[in-house]
Amino acid sequence: MSRVLLGLLREALSERVDTDPQHLQNARADKSGHAAAGTPIAIVHAASIADVQSTMRIASETGTPVVVRGAGTGLAGGANAGAGEIVLSMRGLDRILEVRPDDLLAVVEPGILNADLNRALEGHGLWWAPDPASREISTVGGNIATGAGGLLCAKYGVVRDAVLGLDLVLADGRLLHLGHRSVKGVTGLDLTSLVIGSEGTLGVVVGATLKLRRLVPGQARSLTASFPDVRAAATAAAAVTASGVQPAIMELMDASCLRAVHRLLDLPAPDETAAQLTVQTDGPAASVDAEAIAVTLAEAGGTVRLAADDAEADLLWRVRRSMHPAMETLGTTLIEDVSVPRSALPAMFDEIARIEREFDLVIPTVCHAGDGNLHPNFVFEGDEVPDVIWRAADELFRAARRLGGTLTGEHGVGALKRRWLVDELGEDQWRLQREIMRVFDPQGVLNPGKVFAP
Amino acid sequence: MSRVLLGLLREALSERVDTDPQHLQNARADKSGHAAAGTPIAIVHAASIADVQSTMRIASETGTPVVVRGAGTGLAGGANAGAGEIVLSMRGLDRILEVRPDDLLAVVEPGILNADLNRALEGHGLWWAPDPASREISTVGGNIATGAGGLLCAKYGVVRDAVLGLDLVLADGRLLHLGHRSVKGVTGLDLTSLVIGSEGTLGVVVGATLKLRRLVPGQARSLTASFPDVRAAATAAAAVTASGVQPAIMELMDASCLRAVHRLLDLPAPDETAAQLTVQTDGPAASVDAEAIAVTLAEAGGTVRLAADDAEADLLWRVRRSMHPAMETLGTTLIEDVSVPRSALPAMFDEIARIEREFDLVIPTVCHAGDGNLHPNFVFEGDEVPDVIWRAADELFRAARRLGGTLTGEHGVGALKRRWLVDELGEDQWRLQREIMRVFDPQGVLNPGKVFAP
Repeated sequence: MSRVLLGLLREALSERVDTDPQHLQNARADKSGHAAAGTPIAIVHAASIADVQSTMRIASETGTPVVVRGAGTGLAGGANAGAGEIVLSMRGLDRILEVRPDDLLAVVEPGILNADLNRALEGHGLWWAPDPASREISTVGGNIATGAGGLLCAKYGVVRDAVLGLDLVLADGRLLHLGHRSVKGVTGLDLTSLVIGSEGTLGVVVGATLKLRRLVPGQARSLTASFPDVRAAATAAAAVTASGVQPAIMELMDASCLRAVHRLLDLPAPDETAAQLTVQTDGPAASVDAEAIAVTLAEAGGTVRLAADDAEADLLWRVRRSMHPAMETLGTTLIEDVSVPRSALPAMFDEIARIEREFDLVIPTVCHAGDGNLHPNFVFEGDEVPDVIWRAADELFRAARRLGGTLTGEHGVGALKRRWLVDELGEDQWRLQREIMRVFDPQGVLNPGKVFAP
Repeated sequence: MSRVLLGLLREALSERVDTDPQHLQNARADKSGHAAAGTPIAIVHAASIADVQSTMRIASETGTPVVVRGAGTGLAGGANAGAGEIVLSMRGLDRILEVRPDDLLAVVEPGILNADLNRALEGHGLWWAPDPASREISTVGGNIATGAGGLLCAKYGVVRDAVLGLDLVLADGRLLHLGHRSVKGVTGLDLTSLVIGSEGTLGVVVGATLKLRRLVPGQARSLTASFPDVRAAATAAAAVTASGVQPAIMELMDASCLRAVHRLLDLPAPDETAAQLTVQTDGPAASVDAEAIAVTLAEAGGTVRLAADDAEADLLWRVRRSMHPAMETLGTTLIEDVSVPRSALPAMFDEIARIEREFDLVIPTVCHAGDGNLHPNFVFEGDEVPDVIWRAADELFRAARRLGGTLTGEHGVGALKRRWLVDELGEDQWRLQREIMRVFDPQGVLNPGKVFAP
């Protein structure tokens, strides 16, 4: 079967078809550490919409599963391809087709890296707001597939707030144009929003009309505040939100994160239980806002340090940016991604402390405290996530849901969280979503086994 | 059949069932002037989610169509009910269940009026940004059903940007909870966004978790600028957008609008072809922004008047607010609602001038110039829209689509625009959307004949 399939692919797509064993191996895994079982049949490096359509037609005719892939930086295994599957790589479709400063929009191909797009937009005085931590290495198409967030979203929104329209190739190869170029539009169902975050299960995004913002004027200001423990830091973060001053970024690092980073950077060891907030304000009121936040944090018991200039601000942010390298020094990491209402941050940290005690684990946690999105890191030895960690993660997801939140704020469900999806959606909604997916892809050739697999 | 149905409804819902002939007549029409054919069977005044579920169960069991209705202020006939249909009125479900300043959210029932909600939020220093011109008389549920916009959307977003979650009763009476209370969340398909703007075809919205904003600090500033003709005004508006300064509101009135309003208000007659922009800026930089916009408008040939204080600003805005009463002095009005990219505003006004010439019509047009949404008014005598006006509207829709826009920016498709939906979506997407609707409502009892009817 796979020989027949390869023949069909090569006939239609010739040198776009790649069966290099190392490339196939790479396509099994993403940045989550998870790898699909078995090895995919081939990678198609799409260089045009027609290539995508040809691939999907062949896949539909032969009933072969297709896993759409960008840069492979996902954290939920959503783009990992295994035995019997075709990898459809969008990385080569990376052109910026149009930038319109007068309409605050850009039309791009999905394979462009988020940071490359933003560097190109800078000359126009524009930016695309979604800023996942992976922005230097993740594609705009991948950001759309996962509905990515980032650090700036409490103030500037997530991917769903920043897309006007999408071009989508369906499972059978037909091309649809969803949305429009105008700011407003309510013509029929909003399929653009439905496709955002659908993780390759509804179709292949081959083009995107992005909603841009003007670069924020004025000088950003940064500050840190240290607290005796993580609950105090979380309470202070909630107090900032409740105060009505809007930070551009507000990041929280708990004690084990902070200690690991200080070790990595050869900084003096912090107090055993100390946790830290790092805040950035921007816009015309950046200084006024930074000073108001400093007062709120000091009143909440924080020791505040306001950066005098950009050089000092860079030092403060270096600590936060070193989080992932510091985790890598501890072992293999499973990065979780729960999100809760901002007032529930202290309660969520209490739950994490409880889970650490109950399962005898240390769970270093970093948190986008401005929007309530936590990334607890489960650290372990070896390649396989131990069962005790999945049981602890299960407790973590339940706790987030009890507090009015969700099991994934910005990474997606992919392969790693599919078994929990039904718990959050409920059986009725889960079935309804699966039926909607089947409307787009009746045969189930698009990313089977991901998101909605039982 | 309708006697059996009434018996079932009365047994389940007793005094909630209303067959007052005048009430039934009222439910046939909305603010578009359009009325459904025939008279509905009954109105159910839902007072609880259980009432909604009972109504939908009876409707599904008997195969009876249900038209969900709020305040009846729609402009596309989407909530108009006719022969053989049950009207499900949500107007009585109007409580605010929760306001959380710390989480910037509110949980409300759908029947509350937009302005009532915002008056209640004001005491908390909060507001819900969607501000349709109908906000004093339209419900939040109706705003959600149409995906409403308003005057402030270029700066503060539309309904889709301002809802975190929805409670939805399906056609068969089951209750689903869509979305969550956290800012971020990518768990499964985004059905919350899909339901927004679905005009009563997917389910009955019985509760909404709304994303709120802090009230904007500082004093708003207002200004007007007069131009020799509408093309000059549209070009100036596009220049403001391109300049990078973001107005909170920017409204354009063409010459026939301006003349009608001046007549109504007993103001001196403007020049025959004069058109006017009215602009508001807000936030900490309101004055700086207003002065920058004044310069841009003057350079574009406008005669600018910057209001010195709130009293003068009120006078400037009184002209814009008198637009609809002024139209009513001219005859019956069909208000259209096309939307285009902002740079295409001058071209769209050229198209309107062409259509006026070709069809020998006057089409007074007001425009949310900050976001590219135009409301051309077709004025006629009597109750029935003359065929020549539908032919002119057809040309208008084609022109908006050619310019990258859409046939409805914020009013919806309803009954009045369903015949144009397929032209914009294309046959493939139209069929796909219809199949998605059928997943929610396999029998087709929810608002049949609206939006997707051929």
